[in-house]
Amino acid sequence: MITQSQLSQLCIPSAARIALLVMDGLGGLPHPDTGETELEAARTPNLDYLAKNGICGLAEPISPGLTPGSGPGHLALFGYDPLAFTIGRGILEALGIDFPLRAGDVAARGNFCTIDDEDLIVDRRAGRISTEQCARLCQQLSAIAIPGVECLVSPVEGHRFLLVMRGEGLNPELDDSDPQQLGLPAKDVSPLSREAIRTAALANEWVARAKSLLARSRPANMVLLRGFSRLPDFPSMTDLYKLHPVAVATYPMYRGLAKLVGMRVVDGPHTIAGQFAALGEYFEEHDFFFLHIKQTDSAGEDGDFIRKVRIIEEVDAAMPQLMDLRPEVIVVTGDHSTPAVLKAHSWHPVPFLLHAQFCRPDEVTRFSERTCARGALGTFPTMDLMPLALANARRLNKYGA
Amino acid sequence: MITQSQLSQLCIPSAARIALLVMDGLGGLPHPDTGETELEAARTPNLDYLAKNGICGLAEPISPGLTPGSGPGHLALFGYDPLAFTIGRGILEALGIDFPLRAGDVAARGNFCTIDDEDLIVDRRAGRISTEQCARLCQQLSAIAIPGVECLVSPVEGHRFLLVMRGEGLNPELDDSDPQQLGLPAKDVSPLSREAIRTAALANEWVARAKSLLARSRPANMVLLRGFSRLPDFPSMTDLYKLHPVAVATYPMYRGLAKLVGMRVVDGPHTIAGQFAALGEYFEEHDFFFLHIKQTDSAGEDGDFIRKVRIIEEVDAAMPQLMDLRPEVIVVTGDHSTPAVLKAHSWHPVPFLLHAQFCRPDEVTRFSERTCARGALGTFPTMDLMPLALANARRLNKYGA
Repeated sequence: MITQSQLSQLCIPSAARIALLVMDGLGGLPHPDTGETELEAARTPNLDYLAKNGICGLAEPISPGLTPGSGPGHLALFGYDPLAFTIGRGILEALGIDFPLRAGDVAARGNFCTIDDEDLIVDRRAGRISTEQCARLCQQLSAIAIPGVECLVSPVEGHRFLLVMRGEGLNPELDDSDPQQLGLPAKDVSPLSREAIRTAALANEWVARAKSLLARSRPANMVLLRGFSRLPDFPSMTDLYKLHPVAVATYPMYRGLAKLVGMRVVDGPHTIAGQFAALGEYFEEHDFFFLHIKQTDSAGEDGDFIRKVRIIEEVDAAMPQLMDLRPEVIVVTGDHSTPAVLKAHSWHPVPFLLHAQFCRPDEVTRFSERTCARGALGTFPTMDLMPLALANARRLNKYGA
Repeated sequence: MITQSQLSQLCIPSAARIALLVMDGLGGLPHPDTGETELEAARTPNLDYLAKNGICGLAEPISPGLTPGSGPGHLALFGYDPLAFTIGRGILEALGIDFPLRAGDVAARGNFCTIDDEDLIVDRRAGRISTEQCARLCQQLSAIAIPGVECLVSPVEGHRFLLVMRGEGLNPELDDSDPQQLGLPAKDVSPLSREAIRTAALANEWVARAKSLLARSRPANMVLLRGFSRLPDFPSMTDLYKLHPVAVATYPMYRGLAKLVGMRVVDGPHTIAGQFAALGEYFEEHDFFFLHIKQTDSAGEDGDFIRKVRIIEEVDAAMPQLMDLRPEVIVVTGDHSTPAVLKAHSWHPVPFLLHAQFCRPDEVTRFSERTCARGALGTFPTMDLMPLALANARRLNKYGA
């Protein structure tokens, strides 16, 4: 496969526009009663129109059989090999709550947990305390002052929190303190390199102070840290593709991912139609549009087949707003499958359509898992999306003479 | 593509079972009279049922256009990249006769050949002597005693034999003595590394002794050696995938290959129904089942189209024995194609079906070359089999958050 830098050398500036509509967790599985998937059950005249006049396939986000997390799933869509570009757990947690990270910050995912009188962990999730209780405890921990480093503590959800260490010369090469097992004490945070020795000492000092502050708190009387990481330094989509991308996304995690690849991130009314309307507002200023619809995934995760069908239909009904803008290329797909029958992300490849004047349409006339499997693109790596979109936008030079 | 070690990190223990039925040389080509392949001519209601309710494709064992030997074909099925994991010719020969190899043994494939009065080779296969004569000559050669090394000689078939050198500090980095051409003398065995100098001397000493022992024997009056090799040290399927695999296979070569990847190897009555019955016996103890059917390949190699059709039908008739055990995942495929019209292994990709509760069935309703080509898996690398099977058994964690 072509490397990112080989592809980059072929990119040329152009006024042609590419719209990428991502329905999170789009792919589904047949409902046991009807034998139809969510997409098959949904009435989608606009998506079917695009499929009929476009080229279809099934996109494989990472590798056959692999179930993608949201980070890797989106990196593949944007053309960043998810097996090579990784995002630390701490950073993902920060992106997920829209934490204003700065370069040099070291972020860790934290769990409140329960230890016994001998400091042995008896519950790694402190009985899954409420988010409200988590927020109160985070406020207490925010009082910890350690010279030379600012320690910012933010609640996430339930027993989960975010620790961000801010200061000069911090290094994220640190091992987890979470032993991932009951009956053991929390580990010290160990440095994985010489450069991280001081940061490890600061982290351990913070944990010690947190432990005494929490001594009388039950069940959350201790903290575990993992996934120490720093903002990765990814090349921007502008540097790579000569694009000026904008993301219309409401959920923090996806806004954060878009920022990591150099997109401007905007927002609109938090309805599906509102999100599509926002596209129009920014249409003149940009040439790449990432529109992220979260609700398909949430319905899938909840196992709510009917709701996922309804949301797909709502997206379809809003499609004319996008189609009327006449971007040169429209791509519709997902970052992974979230079949309602599985209530979880899954390994199944994702329905994909690309519509453009010179896309060479295939025989697919309906947008669904089974029809896309017969599309001219076949089952193909999601990493091919960007070269295909750029080619159809006539934004790629010929390779070789 | 994902590396074996990246995949390994995602594997989780589970009770879910995977059954892999390999019909050796399964893929075929149309009969010139009927236009039907062996699979198309066969009546296979059970395989068709699995295809209809499963997901299909054509599996490419090594790379497009490449005709696999049995070793590489099976390594790909088990998820060991056959272009990276290699098995020496001598070792393959030893596996093929169930020779009890030990770690450190150096094995070579031997040919009896004919030389003239000037030691020039006039027949590299000694007129293809009978296996009985080969066995008598091997017995003679077994008398050769060289201090510091045990030299074990076993007949294989026709002019072919196996030489195993056993002792301390042997090294297999040796060039062949077979010049692969008539009119030349046998070469000395040359060391390819400093560490192999002593082993080369021992091998040459053995050849010299063999030559004098055979001086009066005609046409087999000399030996040629090639493929010096040692048992490879492959990671086991248990280490890689957290599986507890068992192989039901009657032919020594496949039993040996299964052992190389850490399978327990068992046996049953040497009929197709007997082999299937053996599965049931070991079903409780294991979670991965490799069932190897050799007869499809033998019929193909013999150019016996009708017999290959009959054997496929016999396998189909036995399928309920496997299906009634209800393993979570059933995979049916071959290690390569052996079309009867070619009487040999071929480069054609191999019909493949995977049946599991959440496999997302495609529109294929019949198990054959042409129908599988339209399956949702398309034509795909055989190396994807293990990740797909593990995913469908729900034995893989999500990649990334």
